[in-house]
Amino acid sequence: MLLRTLFLCLITISCGNLYAQPITGFTPENIPNQLKLEASFEAGLSAENLDAWMQKMAAEPHWVGTEYGRENAEWMAKQFKSWGYDTKIETYDILFPYPTIRELKLVSPVPYEARLTAVPVEGDPYTAQGEALLPSYNAFSTDGDVEAELVFVNYGIPKDYEELEKLGIDVKGKIVIAKYYGSWRGIKPKLAAEKGAIGCIIYSDPEDDGYVRGDVYPEGAFKNKTGVQRGSVMDMPLYPGDVLTPGYAATKDAKRLDRNEAPTITKIPVLPISYEDAQPLLEALKGPVAPDSWRGGLPITYHIGPGPATVHLKLAFDWKLTPAHNVIATLKGSKYPNQWVMRGNHHDAWVHGANDPVSGMIALMEEARVVGELARKGQRPKRTIVYGAWDAEEPGLIGSTEWVEDHEKELQEKLVAYINTDGNGRGFFGAGGSHTLQTMVAEVADIVKDPQTGVSIKERRIARQLVSGGPGTFSLSALGSGSDYTPFIQHAGIASLNIGFGGENAGGEYHTIYDTYPHYKRFKDPEFAYGIALANAAGRIVLRLANADVLPFEFSQWHATVADYLKEIMDGADSMRKDVEKHNSLVSKNAFELAADPRKAFVKPTAREAIPYLDFSPVQNSLAKLSNSIDTFEAISLETLSSAKQEALNKAMQKTEQVLTDVGGLPRRSWFRHQLYAPGFYTGYGVKTLPGVREAIEQKNWEEAQEQISKLSGTFDLMEAHIQKLINLTK
Amino acid sequence: MLLRTLFLCLITISCGNLYAQPITGFTPENIPNQLKLEASFEAGLSAENLDAWMQKMAAEPHWVGTEYGRENAEWMAKQFKSWGYDTKIETYDILFPYPTIRELKLVSPVPYEARLTAVPVEGDPYTAQGEALLPSYNAFSTDGDVEAELVFVNYGIPKDYEELEKLGIDVKGKIVIAKYYGSWRGIKPKLAAEKGAIGCIIYSDPEDDGYVRGDVYPEGAFKNKTGVQRGSVMDMPLYPGDVLTPGYAATKDAKRLDRNEAPTITKIPVLPISYEDAQPLLEALKGPVAPDSWRGGLPITYHIGPGPATVHLKLAFDWKLTPAHNVIATLKGSKYPNQWVMRGNHHDAWVHGANDPVSGMIALMEEARVVGELARKGQRPKRTIVYGAWDAEEPGLIGSTEWVEDHEKELQEKLVAYINTDGNGRGFFGAGGSHTLQTMVAEVADIVKDPQTGVSIKERRIARQLVSGGPGTFSLSALGSGSDYTPFIQHAGIASLNIGFGGENAGGEYHTIYDTYPHYKRFKDPEFAYGIALANAAGRIVLRLANADVLPFEFSQWHATVADYLKEIMDGADSMRKDVEKHNSLVSKNAFELAADPRKAFVKPTAREAIPYLDFSPVQNSLAKLSNSIDTFEAISLETLSSAKQEALNKAMQKTEQVLTDVGGLPRRSWFRHQLYAPGFYTGYGVKTLPGVREAIEQKNWEEAQEQISKLSGTFDLMEAHIQKLINLTK
Repeated sequence: MLLRTLFLCLITISCGNLYAQPITGFTPENIPNQLKLEASFEAGLSAENLDAWMQKMAAEPHWVGTEYGRENAEWMAKQFKSWGYDTKIETYDILFPYPTIRELKLVSPVPYEARLTAVPVEGDPYTAQGEALLPSYNAFSTDGDVEAELVFVNYGIPKDYEELEKLGIDVKGKIVIAKYYGSWRGIKPKLAAEKGAIGCIIYSDPEDDGYVRGDVYPEGAFKNKTGVQRGSVMDMPLYPGDVLTPGYAATKDAKRLDRNEAPTITKIPVLPISYEDAQPLLEALKGPVAPDSWRGGLPITYHIGPGPATVHLKLAFDWKLTPAHNVIATLKGSKYPNQWVMRGNHHDAWVHGANDPVSGMIALMEEARVVGELARKGQRPKRTIVYGAWDAEEPGLIGSTEWVEDHEKELQEKLVAYINTDGNGRGFFGAGGSHTLQTMVAEVADIVKDPQTGVSIKERRIARQLVSGGPGTFSLSALGSGSDYTPFIQHAGIASLNIGFGGENAGGEYHTIYDTYPHYKRFKDPEFAYGIALANAAGRIVLRLANADVLPFEFSQWHATVADYLKEIMDGADSMRKDVEKHNSLVSKNAFELAADPRKAFVKPTAREAIPYLDFSPVQNSLAKLSNSIDTFEAISLETLSSAKQEALNKAMQKTEQVLTDVGGLPRRSWFRHQLYAPGFYTGYGVKTLPGVREAIEQKNWEEAQEQISKLSGTFDLMEAHIQKLINLTK
Repeated sequence: MLLRTLFLCLITISCGNLYAQPITGFTPENIPNQLKLEASFEAGLSAENLDAWMQKMAAEPHWVGTEYGRENAEWMAKQFKSWGYDTKIETYDILFPYPTIRELKLVSPVPYEARLTAVPVEGDPYTAQGEALLPSYNAFSTDGDVEAELVFVNYGIPKDYEELEKLGIDVKGKIVIAKYYGSWRGIKPKLAAEKGAIGCIIYSDPEDDGYVRGDVYPEGAFKNKTGVQRGSVMDMPLYPGDVLTPGYAATKDAKRLDRNEAPTITKIPVLPISYEDAQPLLEALKGPVAPDSWRGGLPITYHIGPGPATVHLKLAFDWKLTPAHNVIATLKGSKYPNQWVMRGNHHDAWVHGANDPVSGMIALMEEARVVGELARKGQRPKRTIVYGAWDAEEPGLIGSTEWVEDHEKELQEKLVAYINTDGNGRGFFGAGGSHTLQTMVAEVADIVKDPQTGVSIKERRIARQLVSGGPGTFSLSALGSGSDYTPFIQHAGIASLNIGFGGENAGGEYHTIYDTYPHYKRFKDPEFAYGIALANAAGRIVLRLANADVLPFEFSQWHATVADYLKEIMDGADSMRKDVEKHNSLVSKNAFELAADPRKAFVKPTAREAIPYLDFSPVQNSLAKLSNSIDTFEAISLETLSSAKQEALNKAMQKTEQVLTDVGGLPRRSWFRHQLYAPGFYTGYGVKTLPGVREAIEQKNWEEAQEQISKLSGTFDLMEAHIQKLINLTK
């Protein structure tokens, strides 16, 4: 489609020293100007600002509702204003639980009281701020006071409960203890409650997040025995944002749910603990030895229980309404002020949050500073650029979600794309998002240099893929959830991206008191070189989206990606069928029982329901037709169109992602409207592509699967009509 | 071939209640008698004997040269005699090193002296025999007194050194510390010495052999923090047996090598230690964090070094000639006294050896007792049966090797097959050996009942294979080394088997002071039911080989197996080629360097030599021709042959395995003569099939690979001529 005949800016006098570079969306005469603009932008970026700003913003704990969080917001607003942005703070009143009681005791066989406190470490004064540090807890755990036998459930995800079933172990009426990781944390209490457990403990096992990974803080970057990962356990796959105002903004006067009816607060109390606190509990378990893959890095034999370890868990929270301050800074576009490009990063942390979120926030600010400076010097972007600094991301993407819910109609009308960042560090470029933007992002990744090697961030990333056996091409991953892009792409249907660097910044500081400036400087991005690289990449993306003659959306790679997702689902159904056939054949031969050790716990498996053949043809036919239309559109020479036609095309094209959403949403979670991407209902952050069809199959709901195939086919038909409309606009 | 039209003993009056059962090698009229004989044999087996004999034999430590070892030999000889066997003790004078000095110290940064002693445990008085217990050491370590920086080398196998090379770490002049497992232990000091290390420490990591596997002794079966695995580190892949008399018997007056020239003694001192002793050493290492897959189960961050940990290792041994007593018990055959069937198991242990070797030894004895009893009652086998109880297996298969070297000519003339057993426990039937015997073993496995489930041991084993995704058919594994079948099959060219039960008997007692009667009774085979099953299976195999009208050798499955090995090698060469091509492509793109973390140790890889295409056609053509001859032989109705012809056939057939050996042996290790099976030169016990060709390719010695293809082709041509000879004998 758009200007896809690669426009090369050959090395000529007019290009200066800029090397040959294709830019999707720009007419040949505009390419040199854009490249010059981007070069000036890059030259203006300063790592010193990042360093100073991190020290400022991460000086004190600043979770939502704190005084320091508010100060940060006001300070940022002041900065944006000073850089020429029309800036305001938009505040919502959200429910935020602060812990008032946190007690965990091993009652028997050997009494132990969990410390629930990470220790200050030498060389990092931030960790010694004592009472000022947020106690470790899981936000949106319900209150509770429970005592029961303990059961170790590995990561506490669906396949772990299948394993427990094979062993004949039931968690009903028990308290489960699960390792962090294996899924987003909120899945653990959700599933545990569904299975009848009355309490849930989550701990960081040293194998995943401690001395097994590397030297622990302060000697190294990894989690010491006292570190605890905080985090939200709100049922975000149902809906994120304020738990009391689902689907609408938590304004002062909004009608709110009764807290006891809020469906995204957990059903059972849940508490995160350190591996120091977990060891006595796990050590006290008997019962079957845990399967090989369940065993962690503690120097014990991992048993499952239930019991004889009995634990008492008591939790209470203050459940207050708290103000969440979003900073919104706008730079009006010179030519298309009603077409917006938005960049965002959250500013709230769990504790100091040097890495999460400050490392991303300061890169965004430096980007905004230089963009503002260039505008002042006369290089104002054609489209309006909006920078957002979100509050209350940590407890559940609340600041961004309330804002998007508040401004939904306007955003759908005006917003071309949303580009998100979050914690950032040394390593490789990673990008996920709407696949219509893949070509544009690849082009930017091809021009931004990796600070350590001097090659492009695209080349370095591909080198890594190749070395680990992956493909030699650049692609966007699909987005599930986990940061503030969620309401934009999943709810409002705005083309979105989430980008950042990482892979050489491993550590155990995430959501602990150790995510501090000293830790960041030693282990994450010592020179802020990757902070600058992030500002550079994100800034170029923003500037291209803001200045493109025709919006750089591309449909051919998009189609190939979506077709791959469908193939993956169809292959998956076939492989489920084969697995069931194999299972049933083994059942009929009594092979499971014969292979089982008669001295060990074992529940004889029964035959499973056969996997039916589904009719995928509706969606296959729709995709085939869509492919033809995309081919037609791509054959059009968009560069020869009049400005008026380009403008009309842009206006229509901006709606593309909305075509892929459905106001009815996904089954049982209407907030999630996107038909191509969603966080997994039982995986949390992890994406499920073509989620309606995929999850129905995974849940073996065949009727719904067939309905969703039909619905997805309809989505692709709408997309085909949309492409036809774009074609007509060129005529 | 032989009588392969399945003779079914239908349920008739003449068969009694014996169900339909094919038996290869028996004419229809002889099947019922054989089945009745086997039924009587099975009925005569008594678990009480096993229990009593284990208590007797494992009452005290009995390594080679001990008084108790000699007493055991004499006691066994007395038993065999009492059961009607012509019994003698054949003694060889072998070199056996007993440790006189064992010192291991961490010199810096923090002094630590290794305890090198396992603790006695409650409920197991055998572990409290103090001085009587053999100190933990590795037999055939050289003497040494070395001090150097320590380097952690994972398992110390070839691919670990490749990884070290990538990190730029050299072990030259260092002392290495390696985990047990990943290879046979003797490979570790051998490779370390080849790489320039001056000492080697081997320890049991709790991940492979400690609390990660399960509860530790005495609470559970697994290795507690003080347990140490003893074991030989003699370079057995070069030749096993007495180090001073390679290829000939260590008789009193044999000419012996000078000890300093003995090539199978290690080049550097090596000592095994517990994980309690290993932890301070590993904890004191710095340098790169070990790769993910190297990290074990200790509660530390595993670093590689070198240093700053510096260790001092001092070892000395007494290097005395010691008598090894083999017990040889013979029951003369009624019809073919000069055709022998031999059963063997070793009787020496490292300490008490309740499991290894006594559990196998007592099953052999019970088998011999009942066979002797049946003979006394008039059911003497047609062929001669020889039972062997080997001494000095633990230090290097010495008793059996010397005996085979002593009697090589006679064995090659008379011995039809050798059936080996060793430690045995609860679980699944496992069998390895000459693939000419696969059909016969499968038939026996189809009639022996599993004690726990009541189905046949074949059905239960196949159930287990199916559940773990394996094939639904029974097959023999190929034999490398690791027990006393080695000299029979690898050196003398005698068809051999190694059988036993296991898989539900896991523990950490192997070669420690914890391999005791109480441990065995609790965790291995509490009722000796699998001891009886072993006696039953081995006894039936012996009785079928002893009484068959035509020896139950089968060539069609043999050919299919060998052809599979060739295919595996050819596929392996192709996959090596693709790997090198991929590697070189990544090198040319500089991908490794771009993907590497510039802050971590990294040596830039260089392009590798391309893998040439080899000419496999000679061996393919020979195998094709051989296949035709086997088809011809199989089409012959052997059951209609005269007794004289059957006898001539048997005499010729007995030589089959010798056709597959070559007196020149394998390159650089002439003791190993078999052309189909050998222990790996760099894996130890693990088998390499078609070893001449396979190892030349693995070592990238292309000239030798082509020569070995030609040699292997010649072997198959000889086999073809042999089959033609068998065909002619039927005319």
